[in-house]
Amino acid sequence: MKNYLENINKAFESKARLGIMSVLMVQERVDFSTLKETLQLTDGNLASHLRALEEAQYLQVEKQFIGRKPNTTYAATNLGKQAFKDHLNALEQLILNNRPNL
Amino acid sequence: MKNYLENINKAFESKARLGIMSVLMVQERVDFSTLKETLQLTDGNLASHLRALEEAQYLQVEKQFIGRKPNTTYAATNLGKQAFKDHLNALEQLILNNRPNL
Repeated sequence: MKNYLENINKAFESKARLGIMSVLMVQERVDFSTLKETLQLTDGNLASHLRALEEAQYLQVEKQFIGRKPNTTYAATNLGKQAFKDHLNALEQLILNNRPNL
Repeated sequence: MKNYLENINKAFESKARLGIMSVLMVQERVDFSTLKETLQLTDGNLASHLRALEEAQYLQVEKQFIGRKPNTTYAATNLGKQAFKDHLNALEQLILNNRPNL
């Protein structure tokens, strides 16, 4: 029981973070409004999840100006991609371990 | 993107709750100390997750005395079992959707 739960990564527990990482596994670099629209999150909620993932060094953030408008983009780091893969593998183990009972 | 995230159930987001439900899919009724040992959680942490799952009507709780000692046991309700299955299916979708990129 404990074994495969150990590899479940608290940084990816929430639905929002699963969503953010899923987007960034497919698209190399995405801006705030695209993430917001794709995941249907509020500004504050999205910002706080992005900050947590950045602090874990799973995201790399770039702040630029497009004309006079600030534009912040996000990319998954290699560390973040690997950690997310490990997390998905742990979830897969959890699912497989539950399958006989489903 | 949004579709399969919609079926991810916030009640099961944390590792502790995934663990609790996994145990209760296999064993019909389990007491507090067994859950605590199996999942390596503190009393307070386990109790708060159990309470949340009970409030969602995913667990059915029974309080008894064995001699003079109180003994509390937990079982997954049918609602809880179905909700957990749906959650695991949503996680599986998430994994499959990420697979081409892993």
